[in-house]
Amino acid sequence: MSRMTVVYRVRSNAASIEARAQAIAVEQSVEMPLAAISDERVLREIVGEVQGIRELEAGLFDVRIGLAVETTGFEAGQLLCMLFGNTSLQEDVTLRCAEIPDAMCVHFGGPNFGVEGLRAACGADGRALTCTALKPQGLPPKELAALAWRLAAGGIDFIKDDHGLADQAYSPFADRVRACAEAVRRARAETGSRTIYVPSVTGSTDAAASQITLTIEEGVGAVMVEPMIIGVSNFHRLVRQFPGMAFIAHPALAGASRIAPPLLLGRLFRLFGADVTIYPNYGGRFSYSPQTCKAVADAARRPWASLKPCMPCPAGGMTLDRVPEILDFYGPDTMLLIGGSLLSARDRMTQETAAFAARVASHFEERSHG
Amino acid sequence: MSRMTVVYRVRSNAASIEARAQAIAVEQSVEMPLAAISDERVLREIVGEVQGIRELEAGLFDVRIGLAVETTGFEAGQLLCMLFGNTSLQEDVTLRCAEIPDAMCVHFGGPNFGVEGLRAACGADGRALTCTALKPQGLPPKELAALAWRLAAGGIDFIKDDHGLADQAYSPFADRVRACAEAVRRARAETGSRTIYVPSVTGSTDAAASQITLTIEEGVGAVMVEPMIIGVSNFHRLVRQFPGMAFIAHPALAGASRIAPPLLLGRLFRLFGADVTIYPNYGGRFSYSPQTCKAVADAARRPWASLKPCMPCPAGGMTLDRVPEILDFYGPDTMLLIGGSLLSARDRMTQETAAFAARVASHFEERSHG
Repeated sequence: MSRMTVVYRVRSNAASIEARAQAIAVEQSVEMPLAAISDERVLREIVGEVQGIRELEAGLFDVRIGLAVETTGFEAGQLLCMLFGNTSLQEDVTLRCAEIPDAMCVHFGGPNFGVEGLRAACGADGRALTCTALKPQGLPPKELAALAWRLAAGGIDFIKDDHGLADQAYSPFADRVRACAEAVRRARAETGSRTIYVPSVTGSTDAAASQITLTIEEGVGAVMVEPMIIGVSNFHRLVRQFPGMAFIAHPALAGASRIAPPLLLGRLFRLFGADVTIYPNYGGRFSYSPQTCKAVADAARRPWASLKPCMPCPAGGMTLDRVPEILDFYGPDTMLLIGGSLLSARDRMTQETAAFAARVASHFEERSHG
Repeated sequence: MSRMTVVYRVRSNAASIEARAQAIAVEQSVEMPLAAISDERVLREIVGEVQGIRELEAGLFDVRIGLAVETTGFEAGQLLCMLFGNTSLQEDVTLRCAEIPDAMCVHFGGPNFGVEGLRAACGADGRALTCTALKPQGLPPKELAALAWRLAAGGIDFIKDDHGLADQAYSPFADRVRACAEAVRRARAETGSRTIYVPSVTGSTDAAASQITLTIEEGVGAVMVEPMIIGVSNFHRLVRQFPGMAFIAHPALAGASRIAPPLLLGRLFRLFGADVTIYPNYGGRFSYSPQTCKAVADAARRPWASLKPCMPCPAGGMTLDRVPEILDFYGPDTMLLIGGSLLSARDRMTQETAAFAARVASHFEERSHG
C-alpha cells in the first residue's frame, strides 16, 4: 500500500536526530513501542518510516517520513491528524510539506469554482480580482449595508464580511446578510457593478449550513469560512454539500498550529475546497516574507492533479499605492484585498473603490501595450 | 457593556511595545484604522482597549487587553477567533490567558459529567482514575477487540481508542466499535471489571454525531473528540446534543507554544464541555514542564462559576513505575493514562493492567494510613 512523504523541520543536535526522526515516524503512525506490535502487516505497512534526514544548518534538520496513505481514511481531519496531530505538541518541530497522492485529490475534489470559475462569475477576463472587507463589527445591519452599497457602487468584485462579523446580538447573521445582499443588488442595478457579496459563515457546521442556505436564498453565490476554526472536515463537508457556492478560506487561527503556510493555506485548503485563500501579505501588518507569500500563491494555483486552481488573496494592511507592485509580484491570477484603507476614505469611499478597481483592471493591459 | 481581559505575551523592543499593544487591541476587535470609524458606540464599546503592559524581561512583555464580550456572540469558534484568530498569524505573540465572564460559563455549560460524574460512572471513590489506549492503528476490529478484552479484564477504568483510530478501510468505525464494545461488555460480565470503552469519534460533525449514536446503541457512555480538529463550535455542539455522554478531549493539533496550554486544554476545553482533558505529561515524550502540567490540571478542575470540574489526564510515554510520583504530583482528582507500556507487556497485559489499577487504587489509601 502506498506511502506519502511528509517533511518535518526539527531542531535537534546531530547526535540525537536519527532517534528523533524515528520517534516522529512512530508518533505520527502507531504511537506505541514497536516492540509491543506483533502484527506483521502493521509493522511493514502502517508504521511510519524515516526516508531521509538532511542537515540545513547546525542544529536544524529536515526529516522525510513516509506515512501510510491508508491511515488517513481519506478524511480531512484525520489527514491533518496523521500529518501533525500529536507532533504539533512538540515545540521543536514544524510541518513543512506533504506529498498528497492524486487519489486523494480525486477523493477530496478541491474547489467548486477555482480561478476560472471566479473570473467568469465576476466577468473579469485576464485581470486580477479585487476584494474588500465589510467592517467594523459592532455596526448594526443597516449601517453595514450602507457601507456595502458604497463599496459595490465603486465596482469592486467581492465584498467579504470581516471575519469578526459572526452572529452577534448587535448584528444577527440573518438581518445583516439580508440587508447587505439587498444593498449590493441595488448597487448592481443602479451602477452596473458586478460586485459579489460574501457573508462570513460561522458556528457549528449545522449553523453554518443554515447560514449558507439563507445566503443562497438571497441570491448570493459565495461565502467565507475559517477552516481552522470550523474544522477542516466540516469545511470540506460544506464545500461538497453546496456545489453551487464559491468558498473563500480565511486563515484565522491557522498560525497557532506551526504548519508551513504554503502547505496549510495553499495546498490543504485548496485540496479541501477553497476557491480563494486569504493570507497575510508581505509588507503589511503581519510577518510573512515575500518568499512565503509567493510560495502560498504558487501552491494555491499551480497545476495539481485534477484540482481546479485556488485564487491566492494577499491581504492585511494593503493600500492603493501598493497595487502595481503587488500585481507585478503575483501576476493576474490573484485577488487583491484592501479593507481598512478603502473604508478610511469615508465620503470618498466609492471613488477610492473605483480607483482601486480601475488600477487593477488597467495594470496588465498597460504592461502588454507598454 | 462588559469587557473580558485577555493577556498576550509579546516579543518586542521597549520603544515599540505601546504601539504593538494598541495594534493587537485593534486586530482582535475591529481590525481597521480607528480613524475610519465614525460610530461612537463602536469606538467606545467594541474597539479593544489596552489595559496594561508589563515588562517580564528585556524584550518580553505581557500585554493586557480588554475585549468586548459582545463580539464573541457567546459562540465557541467566534470566542476563539476574537481571542486569537488573526493574532495567531503573528510569530511574536502568544495567547497567555483570558478572563471568561460567568455569563459565558452559564451559556456554554461545560462538562456533562465532570469529576464526580466520572467517579460515579466507574465506581472510583476518592481515588485517581485509570485509562489506557487501544492501538496500534492498522489492526482489524477483531484484534483490537481481543486487546480490549485483555485490558478490560485487568480492571482498568477507561479504554480509549488511540486518536489514530478513525474510520479507515482496514478497521471501519462501526465494525471496530461494535467489536470492542462487545469485548468490554464480556470482560465486565466475566471478571467484574467496570471498564468503560471510549471510542474516538472523527470526521465532519454529522459523521461524528452518527458515530456517537452508534456508540450509545452499544451501551457505551463516553467518547473521545479532538476539539481543535473538529472545531470547538462543533465540539460544544456535540456535548450539548448528547447530554448523557461523557466527552474526553484529545489535544491533537492543539500546538505547543502559541496558546498557553492551561488556557486552551484546561479552561477553554472545559468551558466547551470536556469531562476529561488529555495532555502531554512532563517527563514523557513531550516537552511540557511540570509547571505547565500543574497549571493545566489546576485550570481543568479548580472551582469555576457553575461549571463542573474537568478531570486532567496526563499522558504520553507514561510507565507503571512512575505512578506514585505522578499521583503525588497531581492528587486523586486525576486520570492516569498509560498506553504503550501496558501493550508492551504482551502475554502479561491483563496482569500489568491489573497492577496499574491496583497501584492507583491503593496509593492514597496507603498515604492516609501511613
